[in-house]
Amino acid sequence: MKIDAAYYTGNGSFELRKVEDVAPGPGEVQVETAFCGICGTDLHVYLGHMEARIGDNRVIGHEMSGRVSAVGDGVEGYRIGDPVVVRPLAHCGHCPACKAGHIHVCHKLKFLGLDTDGAFQNRWTVPAHVLHKLPADMPLDQAALVEPMAVAVHDVRRAGVAVGEDVLVIGGGPIGMLVALVARHAGAQVTISEVNESRLKLARNMGFATANPRNENVAERIMAETGDKGADVVFEVSGTQPGVDLMTEVAATRGRICMVAIHAQKPQIDLFRFFWREIELIGARTYEIGDFDAAISLLSQGIGADRLITDIRPLAELPDAFKALTENPDSMKTLIRVTEEAV
Amino acid sequence: MKIDAAYYTGNGSFELRKVEDVAPGPGEVQVETAFCGICGTDLHVYLGHMEARIGDNRVIGHEMSGRVSAVGDGVEGYRIGDPVVVRPLAHCGHCPACKAGHIHVCHKLKFLGLDTDGAFQNRWTVPAHVLHKLPADMPLDQAALVEPMAVAVHDVRRAGVAVGEDVLVIGGGPIGMLVALVARHAGAQVTISEVNESRLKLARNMGFATANPRNENVAERIMAETGDKGADVVFEVSGTQPGVDLMTEVAATRGRICMVAIHAQKPQIDLFRFFWREIELIGARTYEIGDFDAAISLLSQGIGADRLITDIRPLAELPDAFKALTENPDSMKTLIRVTEEAV
Ligand SMILES: [Zn+2]
Ligand SMILES: [Zn+2]
Ligand SMILES: [Zn+2]
Ligand SMILES: [Zn+2]
Repeated sequence: MKIDAAYYTGNGSFELRKVEDVAPGPGEVQVETAFCGICGTDLHVYLGHMEARIGDNRVIGHEMSGRVSAVGDGVEGYRIGDPVVVRPLAHCGHCPACKAGHIHVCHKLKFLGLDTDGAFQNRWTVPAHVLHKLPADMPLDQAALVEPMAVAVHDVRRAGVAVGEDVLVIGGGPIGMLVALVARHAGAQVTISEVNESRLKLARNMGFATANPRNENVAERIMAETGDKGADVVFEVSGTQPGVDLMTEVAATRGRICMVAIHAQKPQIDLFRFFWREIELIGARTYEIGDFDAAISLLSQGIGADRLITDIRPLAELPDAFKALTENPDSMKTLIRVTEEAV
Repeated sequence: MKIDAAYYTGNGSFELRKVEDVAPGPGEVQVETAFCGICGTDLHVYLGHMEARIGDNRVIGHEMSGRVSAVGDGVEGYRIGDPVVVRPLAHCGHCPACKAGHIHVCHKLKFLGLDTDGAFQNRWTVPAHVLHKLPADMPLDQAALVEPMAVAVHDVRRAGVAVGEDVLVIGGGPIGMLVALVARHAGAQVTISEVNESRLKLARNMGFATANPRNENVAERIMAETGDKGADVVFEVSGTQPGVDLMTEVAATRGRICMVAIHAQKPQIDLFRFFWREIELIGARTYEIGDFDAAISLLSQGIGADRLITDIRPLAELPDAFKALTENPDSMKTLIRVTEEAV
């Protein structure tokens, strides 16, 4: 049998190929991919920022959902048809981070779907231990949000968001929105700061307070709204110098700032404020095993994340979908319907 | 009766005056000052960096020890002759920090000996609640180290130093040395990074591993010594851009960086590293009530802090002592013997 697979072939190009369906080896499980979302990292691949790491013959994609289609020797607990998602991390087991129990930030971490072939193909074979089972009644399109939701769960847990706290999310893209949803579920009052008006509108429709730093002084407003306390927790998801300036201005005494964004440059930062107000900055990356389980639980409770899915397109339109995402800043999350009959 | 007091009169000048001895009011205690150390902040006053805050008619000094000399109405638990130190903080009780229980970083915090008259005088009157009693057998010169030791205890507690961890202290001045002593007492292996060779020599004499960033790559060395793990906890006490660069390079995955130094500029910082290695940055300022008690306990156990006292001079030589400290980078801690007969 042949399957369809979308190969990234370098220089912003994808090629749809028919390839041989290979049975899973011992300890492996083959999953029929139903849906796979396009992640910010996938866009970086498409834009040619990761050529050295990705090469020119790679199936990418990791924000997926699907059903078990074949089970390798020695694998227990999975049966054909089980709905699953993949936690796309492979750790080394020997580095200082692994030894300390932090396998999700292993110093030699491999990301499945970047460093290995991923989910933009009808069948994806992975080690059994990266699978998480889904509730039988969870729609598989929503389940494609489990991976980015797990990022948000990890961020909110790292920041220790507590009930009744005031939270500011700087940057209202898909991850910022998911962080806002999870923080609100944790009992916080959440404001989203974002410059894109259509994202702000979506945020308001989802019930969040919003602020546009192009139109107002966000720090002053939050201070006024909180009786000069400031935000107990700030999530920096913008990756910009203005975002870094705002995060220190707005944080409460003993506030926590969670560093979600990737800052490729070294921004200037108000370290005096960290000293003066005993602020904490907390880095957060990927997710731990329990974060994935929590993300599945939150999504199945229905916390409104499905509103972030702006369109769903078939695998044949994957190249167009990538092109559209880079050209339209208003779209949030695009899913690829990888295997029609799996849905 | 008249007492001696050293007034800071602006422009780097002190004036020794005879002033009236005033009885403590209700709720107050008068302390006969035995010793008072010269702090980095006091040097900033002397160098004219704080003229607007201090004015030209202020007795400074807060790193003190002494004995109760008079007790005001309504004060219980103190008798004349009790050996004491002062926790020189006055909080407002109404701001967001106070409401959250963090009175030591009150938004309207007054520092006794800067915002009010301080300890460079024979008799110092303070509210009873800022006193901490000393063990009867603690030498009062060593007790003048309680206040900076409380800073170090607060820093080490904020950073959560755990037994067996690798700690790097960047900056080997008095506070850096005290942080190193407390971290070692907490069971950590401590290295001190410092550029001044005489301070490095003192650190080695006190049994610490040392590194001079002018002569070697400190981050590479710590990585090599820890099997590529890095420092579990870093204390940034240097207040310099190279210190900020080193702190992110050397921190382990999930490592904690404690921001002790005052960074008047906004340095550039490698925020990517915070994300990538899930590092935490933790601001730490002044001390909580329990930190003072812990500092007294540690000093009375004798953890070697007395080696930091490089000289003791009478109150009459206070102006010379300030001058000498700014001219000699090799001296560590100078104490003023404020009242001869109190010792
Ligand atoms: Zn992703
Ligand atoms: Zn590892
Ligand atoms: Zn001091
Ligand atoms: Zn206050």
